[in-house]
Amino acid sequence: MMKHVISALVQNVPGVLSHISGMFAARGYNIDSLAVGETHDPHFSRMTFVVVGNDNVLNQVRLQLAKIITVVKVEDLSTMDYVERDLVLIRVKASPLQRSAVMELVQIFRANVVDVSQTDMMLEISGKESKVEAFIDVMRPFEIIELVRTGRIALARTRQEQESFSDQTSL
Amino acid sequence: MMKHVISALVQNVPGVLSHISGMFAARGYNIDSLAVGETHDPHFSRMTFVVVGNDNVLNQVRLQLAKIITVVKVEDLSTMDYVERDLVLIRVKASPLQRSAVMELVQIFRANVVDVSQTDMMLEISGKESKVEAFIDVMRPFEIIELVRTGRIALARTRQEQESFSDQTSL
Repeated sequence: MMKHVISALVQNVPGVLSHISGMFAARGYNIDSLAVGETHDPHFSRMTFVVVGNDNVLNQVRLQLAKIITVVKVEDLSTMDYVERDLVLIRVKASPLQRSAVMELVQIFRANVVDVSQTDMMLEISGKESKVEAFIDVMRPFEIIELVRTGRIALARTRQEQESFSDQTSL
Repeated sequence: MMKHVISALVQNVPGVLSHISGMFAARGYNIDSLAVGETHDPHFSRMTFVVVGNDNVLNQVRLQLAKIITVVKVEDLSTMDYVERDLVLIRVKASPLQRSAVMELVQIFRANVVDVSQTDMMLEISGKESKVEAFIDVMRPFEIIELVRTGRIALARTRQEQESFSDQTSL
């Protein structure tokens, strides 16, 4: 079962989310994460779904989304070269004695400390899903108290018709 | 009309999103952004909504959410001291001649360049809503081609009952 990243450009009108999530629920599709935010044009929002399923499920999802009139455009980014990001805030238990052990991992992962108390620390990390997952895993031994994550967002890299530097650089 | 950041811990079962977004749509509540992701416990997801409305609307939202049995806990973070983050990927038009002007702003805002081509650049920025909004605004003159954002996520700072360093530090 593959995870697919679907990006849908939708009209920014009430009820779009309800319409789309109702379609997913009615068909029993499993959404791993969802992020909905305005674009640079206040008339449109962009939804990024991570859907688990085989090619058949995915084709159905695309077809069903395309039928919804407030959905302007649907892309399956998994079929393209794309950049993905996920953002997480984590609160872990950390006594003053444990702080340096947490800090060491924070530095290795290029995460940030955003709050500290006598009993715990709040950390922030953003990056590819795999990096974020690895960071969460190394934090588990400290005991995670709370965790909130945005779910993935993604944009396709510059279209192949255009000349792109992205292959030659380490970006 | 104030923006409220609502955090809901929900059971990770199909249909929760549909249930909640249906409730919002039926009552005409306006959601500015929504982020849904798993927590560290695969049984639970956390949804972060930004809802626009007065205190009355907000009380209704809280009451209605609390009625949904798959909703475990609802917090209005706007009433607490909290840390918020938003993450954005932006593609802007930038010819080779314009690159240094874009880079200057990227450095000022501590954003990152994630992709470059002959015609455009893809940038990433995370931080407080106000910082992210300011960055989007300075990018507008270059022409924004695509923009995707996660919407806000937030966690309350350490409870006041505990001793917290967060006031004394610049974190």
